[in-house]
Amino acid sequence: PNAFLASLPTTIFTVMSQLAAEHDAINLGQGFPDTEGPGLLIDAAVEALRDYRNQYAPLMGLPELRQAVARSNRRYGLDVDPAREVLVTSGATEAIAACLMAVVESGDEVVLIEPLYDTYLPVLRMIGATARCVRLHPPEWRLDPDELRAAFGPRTKAILVNSPMNPAGKVFSREELELIAGLVREHDVFAICDEVYEHLTFDVPHIPLMTLPDMRDRCMRIGSAGKSFSLTGWKVGYVTASAALTALVAKAHQLLVFATPPNLQRAVAVGLSMDESYFRELAEGMKMRRDLLAHGLHALGFPTLPADGSYFVVADIRQHAAGRDDVTFCRDMVREARVAAIPVSAFYDPEGPPPPRHLVRFAFCKKPEVLRAALDRLRALC
Amino acid sequence: PNAFLASLPTTIFTVMSQLAAEHDAINLGQGFPDTEGPGLLIDAAVEALRDYRNQYAPLMGLPELRQAVARSNRRYGLDVDPAREVLVTSGATEAIAACLMAVVESGDEVVLIEPLYDTYLPVLRMIGATARCVRLHPPEWRLDPDELRAAFGPRTKAILVNSPMNPAGKVFSREELELIAGLVREHDVFAICDEVYEHLTFDVPHIPLMTLPDMRDRCMRIGSAGKSFSLTGWKVGYVTASAALTALVAKAHQLLVFATPPNLQRAVAVGLSMDESYFRELAEGMKMRRDLLAHGLHALGFPTLPADGSYFVVADIRQHAAGRDDVTFCRDMVREARVAAIPVSAFYDPEGPPPPRHLVRFAFCKKPEVLRAALDRLRALC
Ligand SMILES: CSCCC(=O)C(=O)O
Ligand SMILES: CSCCC(=O)C(=O)O
Repeated sequence: PNAFLASLPTTIFTVMSQLAAEHDAINLGQGFPDTEGPGLLIDAAVEALRDYRNQYAPLMGLPELRQAVARSNRRYGLDVDPAREVLVTSGATEAIAACLMAVVESGDEVVLIEPLYDTYLPVLRMIGATARCVRLHPPEWRLDPDELRAAFGPRTKAILVNSPMNPAGKVFSREELELIAGLVREHDVFAICDEVYEHLTFDVPHIPLMTLPDMRDRCMRIGSAGKSFSLTGWKVGYVTASAALTALVAKAHQLLVFATPPNLQRAVAVGLSMDESYFRELAEGMKMRRDLLAHGLHALGFPTLPADGSYFVVADIRQHAAGRDDVTFCRDMVREARVAAIPVSAFYDPEGPPPPRHLVRFAFCKKPEVLRAALDRLRALC
Repeated sequence: PNAFLASLPTTIFTVMSQLAAEHDAINLGQGFPDTEGPGLLIDAAVEALRDYRNQYAPLMGLPELRQAVARSNRRYGLDVDPAREVLVTSGATEAIAACLMAVVESGDEVVLIEPLYDTYLPVLRMIGATARCVRLHPPEWRLDPDELRAAFGPRTKAILVNSPMNPAGKVFSREELELIAGLVREHDVFAICDEVYEHLTFDVPHIPLMTLPDMRDRCMRIGSAGKSFSLTGWKVGYVTASAALTALVAKAHQLLVFATPPNLQRAVAVGLSMDESYFRELAEGMKMRRDLLAHGLHALGFPTLPADGSYFVVADIRQHAAGRDDVTFCRDMVREARVAAIPVSAFYDPEGPPPPRHLVRFAFCKKPEVLRAALDRLRALC
C-alpha cells in the first residue's frame, strides 16, 4: 500500500459530519448550504437528462458551459477564449489536483498560505513536491510581506492562493495581491487561484489575482458551480487559464476523470448566464447569515475574527475553553451542545510548527432559523 | 510546466471524435452508445434532482448505491460489506487512478497487458512507477504464460487486468485468470481489475479475478454505470475491495474528486437493482451488434479478431491497406469513407517495441442501422 495515503487521516469534514449525525447535532462543520440552488438550474438539469445528454461530454467540457464561463469572466475585465482557455472539471477539488499536477513536478516547491484547505498539502506530497507554508496572523489574518517573500526560492514553481479564503473568511486586498503578484513575477512562477467563493464577498470586492499586471498567463483561476449556485453535490468546477496552461491542466483531467456529467454542465451554463442580481442576492443572503451567526457568537463570548467572504467565520473559544484545545472543544461541543464545527488547527500542516489551538470554524451557509437554533444550543453551554 | 504531462498527446478518442465531426463521419471510434440508458434510471435521476439531493454526497458514496453494488456482487458469489468494501467514484477513469495511487509508489513496478486502455500508462508514470508490459498475441490475443511470468519481479507491486478487454474484446478465461492469480499470490502483489464491461460478454462467462482462491483481499474490482447502463456521460464508477484497500482508495478519491453527484448515484442504485433480464438483454443486444459489424467487416475483406466482450471488435486491414499503417489508414478512412475508428497501435506503450500496425478497433455499441450505414460507406472504399 501507498504509505503516504495510508498515513493520511480521513478528512475532518467527514469525521465531524459523521459525529454530527451520531449526536443529532446541527452541522455547522462541513460547508454546504441547507437550502437548494435555483430552480432554474434544477429544471435545466432535468431537461438535459430527458433530452438525452447522457453520453460522454467533451474532455474540455460542453461548449455552452465553456462559453458561459468565458462570459462570466468579463465582470472582472478578463477577455477569455472559450475554446482554448476554459476547462470544465469534476468540481474544484479535481481542478486543484489537476492544476497542481499541470505545473508542479517531484522536487519542486509550492508556496501555500495557512490556514489552508485540507487537500492542498496531501496532493502536493503525492506529486512529490514540497510545500513552503506561510502563516496568516490572527486575529486579523494579516499576511506578513517578509514571511511571504522568505517562502519563495530557486525551487519555487507556484503559489496557491485561496481568496476568499477557507477557513479564514479572509478576502485578499489589492495590496496583498500586488505583493503576491510581484513575487510571482520576480520568481517567474505560476499561481493556482482557488476562487470558489468568488461570488460570496461581503462589502469588499473579489479581485482575481489574474487581473493584476502580467498575471494573465501565470494564473489558473478555479471556480465552482457548487459554491456559486448552492449545489455542492454537483461537483462541477471550471478552470480559466492561458491556452498553454489550459492544455496542460486538460492532460491531467484526462487521466484523473476525463469528463463531467453533461446534464449538470448544461444546467451550470444556464446558471452562469443569470442576471447579476442573482449573484448579488446570493451574497446579500450570505452576509445576513454571517452577521446573524457572528453577532450571536460574539454575544455568547465567542469573539469572531473578520470574515469578509466564503461560507465561514472563525471564533475565538478561549473564554469558554477552560484549557481545552480546539479539537477537544469541538468534540465536547457536539456531545454537549449538539452543534458541530471544525477546529481550525485541522487546516495546518500536521508536520509544521504547532498551530493555533483557540480557534473554531463555523459555517453560516444555513437557514437563519438553523443558525438561531445553533446559537440557542450554544447558549445552554455557556 | 510538468514535462511529462506536456509530452502527453491528446487522447486518441478526442482526436478521432473531432476528426469524425469535421468530416461528418459515422463515429465508430470512441466507445459510447448512440441509444440511451433505461428510462427508469433517467426518471430516478430526475426525481433525485427535484427531491433536492444536490449537496455533497458522502465521500464513500450514497449508502443506497453502496448497498446496490454489494448486492450486485452476489451474482459472482462475492459477499461484500456495503459499509466498508465499496467506494463510489466519478467514473472508472478516476477509479483506476485512485486504485493505482492506493497501492503503488514511486519506484514500484506494475504489470500491464497490451494492448491497453490509454490512461493506464500515463497515470503510472505520473506516480513515478514503472510499467512492465506483456503483449497479447493476435490474432487470438493469446497470453503467453512465460512472458507474463517474466514481467513479475521483486519490485512488482500490482498487475492491472482488464477483462473484458478494451480494445481487444478479449474475455480472460478461467485458465488465464488462474495463471494470473498464481503469480499474484507468488509475488504477494495486488490486482487492479478493470471490469467495466462485466455485463457485456457474449456466450462466455465474465469471471472476476477476485473470485479466485486467495484473491478476495488482493483485488480492487472496478465497475462502471456508464458501461452497464449505456450512460457513459454520467461518470459513476465503483470499486469493490477489502475494507483495508477500500479505505486506501478512498483516501486517493478524497484528494482527487471527493464525491460524486448524488442524483446520479441514486439513479445507478436503482439501475443495479433491476432484474437479471435487463443485463441479459443488454448483452444480447450488443452481441447482435457485434455480429452485424464483424460479419460485415469480414465480408468486406477486413477479417475480424475474436471479440467475446466489450464494445469493440478489432479488424485486420491488410487486404485494403496498400502498405499504409493503421494510423494513416484510419485518417484516410475518415476522409474517404466517412467512418471513424481507432488504430490499435494507439493502445501500446509509445516507448515500447513497435506495435502491430495492421489492426483497427471498431465500436459496435451503435444502432444496427448506423452499423449498416457504416458498412455501406466502407463498401464504397473497397
Ligand atoms: C469537500 S467537503 C468540504 C467542504 C468545504 O469546502 C469545507 O467545509 O471546507
Ligand atoms: C473515456 S473516452 C474513451 C471511451 C472508451 O472507453 C473507448 O473508446 O475506449
